[in-house]
Amino acid sequence: MIPTQSVPEVLHRARELVTPALRSAVGRLSPELRPLAEYHLGWCDAEGRPTGGDGGKGVRQALAVLSAEAVGAHAMTGVPGAVAVELVHNFSLIHDDVIDEDAERRHRPTVWALFGIGRAVIAGDALLALAQQVVLEPAQSAGSLEAPLGPDGARAARCIANATAAMIAGQALDMAFESVPVVDVAGCLAMEAGKTGALLGCASAIGAVLAGAPDETVVMLDTYGMELGLAFQAVDDLLGIWGDPVATGKPAWSDLRQHKKTLPVAAALAVGDGKAEELAWLLALEHLEEAQVARAAALVEECGGRTAAADEADRRLAAALAALEAAKLVGSAAEELAEVARFVVEREF
Amino acid sequence: MIPTQSVPEVLHRARELVTPALRSAVGRLSPELRPLAEYHLGWCDAEGRPTGGDGGKGVRQALAVLSAEAVGAHAMTGVPGAVAVELVHNFSLIHDDVIDEDAERRHRPTVWALFGIGRAVIAGDALLALAQQVVLEPAQSAGSLEAPLGPDGARAARCIANATAAMIAGQALDMAFESVPVVDVAGCLAMEAGKTGALLGCASAIGAVLAGAPDETVVMLDTYGMELGLAFQAVDDLLGIWGDPVATGKPAWSDLRQHKKTLPVAAALAVGDGKAEELAWLLALEHLEEAQVARAAALVEECGGRTAAADEADRRLAAALAALEAAKLVGSAAEELAEVARFVVEREF
Repeated sequence: MIPTQSVPEVLHRARELVTPALRSAVGRLSPELRPLAEYHLGWCDAEGRPTGGDGGKGVRQALAVLSAEAVGAHAMTGVPGAVAVELVHNFSLIHDDVIDEDAERRHRPTVWALFGIGRAVIAGDALLALAQQVVLEPAQSAGSLEAPLGPDGARAARCIANATAAMIAGQALDMAFESVPVVDVAGCLAMEAGKTGALLGCASAIGAVLAGAPDETVVMLDTYGMELGLAFQAVDDLLGIWGDPVATGKPAWSDLRQHKKTLPVAAALAVGDGKAEELAWLLALEHLEEAQVARAAALVEECGGRTAAADEADRRLAAALAALEAAKLVGSAAEELAEVARFVVEREF
Repeated sequence: MIPTQSVPEVLHRARELVTPALRSAVGRLSPELRPLAEYHLGWCDAEGRPTGGDGGKGVRQALAVLSAEAVGAHAMTGVPGAVAVELVHNFSLIHDDVIDEDAERRHRPTVWALFGIGRAVIAGDALLALAQQVVLEPAQSAGSLEAPLGPDGARAARCIANATAAMIAGQALDMAFESVPVVDVAGCLAMEAGKTGALLGCASAIGAVLAGAPDETVVMLDTYGMELGLAFQAVDDLLGIWGDPVATGKPAWSDLRQHKKTLPVAAALAVGDGKAEELAWLLALEHLEEAQVARAAALVEECGGRTAAADEADRRLAAALAALEAAKLVGSAAEELAEVARFVVEREF
């Protein structure tokens, strides 16, 4: 039996397997689209010169590869799913940056900031269409219309399409939250389940789907990924307020400055007492002075918002690990999936 | 045998079949996204009040339904394909309006002009994801992850994904043409094959795909639709210069005013004589005076650009009809497909 690897080793191993397939997929884009995708993925600079970079941590691709191994299949079985999930994730980042008017990502200009809104829109579209092509193609084939595709490929394509639709709905809900004064905890969780949970659920199940695993296993792996996504998001919301500015690269209480309606705020406001009312009043102000931001952070904490979000993260991590147990997985991949979950959730804050 | 119907009758019949399924699909969008889709489709006004409208002519949905009937299947077999194709077409319209900064479509504000760029981007994304969901779902099922999907559904999903990718590449090529002084005829046709031909090819084949027709038939129907698209586009390019302003709703020589690099212009410039050089010089000017626009139109005609585009339309229509013949179709739908091709190409100009 292969010994269990550490999370950095798992991420590295998955990257070694997935990157060639991802590069090959992106290489099929037309000459007008490919440079934008390669720039966004961190492979090239704005002039198309290779940078040696390789994008983010690659948690999604690792989950897809592990989910194939965890049902007894070869890691390569999960690779088309890993590629599709990474393409969908990056489609969403490119479009989200347009939507949020974010000019920087990972200390580089975003695609729209560099190439214009129109080209960013079409580049995102291209990645989404490519994701479906990749997962709908029979293995080892150039993917002509005529080649047959197994039932697992169709199931994987459905997994991708459903997760993409849920992610888009979550993003639309997040946008709608900007124009309402208060968001409740349930609304907050529903938004995060769509925006973050759905694709992580798909990533965690798609390798097993491609391996032809039974429905019960697939559903449990999907649940693991969804719960992991919600745990991750709860931690992200905590870091958005109390994260170390040195580590996050953002000022203290960043999310409060931006009036973001995150889980700690929603939980605090739900208390409904005098302090919650003061918090609501502060957050309704157009601009917050430094002392007011600090006061708002203190109020979120005093109303129990910080504890509520931390408890939520713990509960969701436990639920993710319970789903893994229930999935009855095999080999070292099962323990590695558990390690990835702890790694994602137990970041410093 | 059912008698052959006129084109308006065919379009009406297809609309009656497809609209309930299209409305049902759009009805699955979240409350944040549905009103934008319904507005774009002409079903609602900006406040969400029903208008009784039903969008464009619906040529694509009619092709999808006819392509099922033409291989001996029931028209309903083609309906999920028709819905998916309409959703992809409307995704592209919403995003193209963002990209081209067009504030009006069919005498109404475009989605981005009314709801903002961010919401238009996400609404387009939602229609594309929904298209894949619709075609990947087993018939008569709500489409859970677990339900099985036949090989025809997977093939149809691949048909949609490939056509979408080609359409996006065509749009990206069209955008790239804006920043080059001259486009040759081959480049022009390659762009139009992607931007217009690919989805019409898919529309014309997807009903047959869903009906389980043999590859030879599917390929011929796809060719019919692609050729039809190129014929349509050649006519569109002619109307863009010499169309009756009353009929087109645009000023005379509209495309020349906008420096659009269409087929008649590309064919005229390819002549390379003194007149072609004068045309190139005129089109390189930042702004054209009225007399210069008229002179450019005359030069395109004198260099044979008008004849070349008209010949191209005739050739492409003939090729579409030849592909139909070769497809060996059955029933009245075969003749109706031929009629739709003539109808699309033989518009007044």
